[in-house]
Amino acid sequence: MSEKFIIGVDLGGTNLRLGLLDSRYKLKDKIAFGTKKFIRKEDLIQAIIDSVHKMTSDHALDKKDILGVGLGLPGPINVREGTVHFFPNISGWRDVNLKSILEKKLRLPVFLDNDANLMSLAESKLGAAKGLKNALCLTLGTGVGGGVIINGNIYRGSSFAAGEVGHIPINERGPRCNCGGRGCLEVYVGNQKILRQAKRLFKRDITLEELSRLAVRGNSQAIRVWSKVGMRLGLALAGAVNLLNPDAIVIGGGVAAAGKVLFDQVRETIILRAMSVQAQKVKIYRAKLGPDAGLIGAAILVRDNLEKSHDLQHVT
Amino acid sequence: MSEKFIIGVDLGGTNLRLGLLDSRYKLKDKIAFGTKKFIRKEDLIQAIIDSVHKMTSDHALDKKDILGVGLGLPGPINVREGTVHFFPNISGWRDVNLKSILEKKLRLPVFLDNDANLMSLAESKLGAAKGLKNALCLTLGTGVGGGVIINGNIYRGSSFAAGEVGHIPINERGPRCNCGGRGCLEVYVGNQKILRQAKRLFKRDITLEELSRLAVRGNSQAIRVWSKVGMRLGLALAGAVNLLNPDAIVIGGGVAAAGKVLFDQVRETIILRAMSVQAQKVKIYRAKLGPDAGLIGAAILVRDNLEKSHDLQHVT
Repeated sequence: MSEKFIIGVDLGGTNLRLGLLDSRYKLKDKIAFGTKKFIRKEDLIQAIIDSVHKMTSDHALDKKDILGVGLGLPGPINVREGTVHFFPNISGWRDVNLKSILEKKLRLPVFLDNDANLMSLAESKLGAAKGLKNALCLTLGTGVGGGVIINGNIYRGSSFAAGEVGHIPINERGPRCNCGGRGCLEVYVGNQKILRQAKRLFKRDITLEELSRLAVRGNSQAIRVWSKVGMRLGLALAGAVNLLNPDAIVIGGGVAAAGKVLFDQVRETIILRAMSVQAQKVKIYRAKLGPDAGLIGAAILVRDNLEKSHDLQHVT
Repeated sequence: MSEKFIIGVDLGGTNLRLGLLDSRYKLKDKIAFGTKKFIRKEDLIQAIIDSVHKMTSDHALDKKDILGVGLGLPGPINVREGTVHFFPNISGWRDVNLKSILEKKLRLPVFLDNDANLMSLAESKLGAAKGLKNALCLTLGTGVGGGVIINGNIYRGSSFAAGEVGHIPINERGPRCNCGGRGCLEVYVGNQKILRQAKRLFKRDITLEELSRLAVRGNSQAIRVWSKVGMRLGLALAGAVNLLNPDAIVIGGGVAAAGKVLFDQVRETIILRAMSVQAQKVKIYRAKLGPDAGLIGAAILVRDNLEKSHDLQHVT
């Protein structure tokens, strides 16, 4: 039998990345493009289909060489049905059964999940949380995404919406959040908030990358910004740690580049604010798989689902 | 084969309750006594042993008629080893292997767990959360206890300390909590806090029972106290609901007697503060099994553990 490949897709608010992975989840090739030009949802779907075709033809692969296509998407998904409820940052999507649309056009098995869940799945199977039973994974970016690992598996909750670490409120009368709540973690540690704070301190525009570099080099103002981010993160995580008593918390995404100053503050705040048994247990790790975690998670999703249905066929 | 019974023990900060349950978890008889007079841990352990003997002799039962003894305890427990780490409200206990002590003296299988976990187990198997996959259970008393049900089972976490709903912080600069944190739910909705607030409003001492009765009858000041409690509960639960996306939240304990005014406020706050997909899913239920939930949970714990080891014997 010849080697089988999997196609992973990671759709973000501004970019789409598509990867060809081998059966060991090694990334063989990647396509990336901006999504802003695709105003209508039909055009974006067609762009995904075209990219799958381009990837397979570039590598002279047939349909039979591809196990399936996995997609990580930036919004709530009904994983069982393969339906996108909506995307907070891409308009025009409302209860779209993307799985069945793509399966019809591609004639390949297609599986969808939330992007943060797929990052968590990848970190849990191959990354920083590998071999751990219970973990909480976070991606810090424009928003704060998260995924919950229970007994080594993604825990998706009763309507596939678990893991919203960014929407743990930390202040009763805190600022309004896009989700409709108040004082959610995300309003304090989202990218835009960090950049606004940094601008006030440095009295000029500054990128996240520069802010991270400055902190790593010991700039006290940059350290102040990151310490505050770490403190708020630690505070929300203290509640999650008391509730879930996990082995580890894995933190990834652009913001994690701030490194030691951020991670030390998160650890310190959890020691200070969480209960002793839970705080002593939990390790705080930096995500290992970087920006490809979503593509790897999408491939794992395909493999897991196909193996599950294969097992079921053998049982019945 | 004659019918088998289980002995359940529910140790609180001030009282110990011991029950005889049949194989359908029906409570046949109950003993209760205060624990304050037992200063030394050895005396309290002896009192438990004496009560087990009294219960069996009262009902003319032999050791072979008893499946085992289950204990619900007010503090962190290593469930696997059967060790009490410590009790926040009973001094003199530090890493005591109560399971092995009792098994030696009683010559019966003994299993321990945290009291809130056992209440949650009972509500999940026979009470308000029966048949649901994912739920969060709370007991509101002196403190706020909690248990997490995932896929129909108690989720205990990586060091058996999961479920501490009372220690989700809801205000960054909130009042100090006994756990070492700040602004934990428990500092706002613990019994003492509620009674202090009520005293300020009514300008006299008032019991929780009276405060509940007054609210049920429409007294506006009592309603104000309970609304505030419900709001704070709802706020902490909004974070837990966003994180875990459960089917239901089950609320029990003395404070739950406040009834509709409390539960309506919890529901309203969750709708207002939690994310829409999660808020639409979650039902808020009052606990069904009342003060016997702990004894019933202790009996279920014994049964579950013995069946598990029985299954293992059959496999090997």
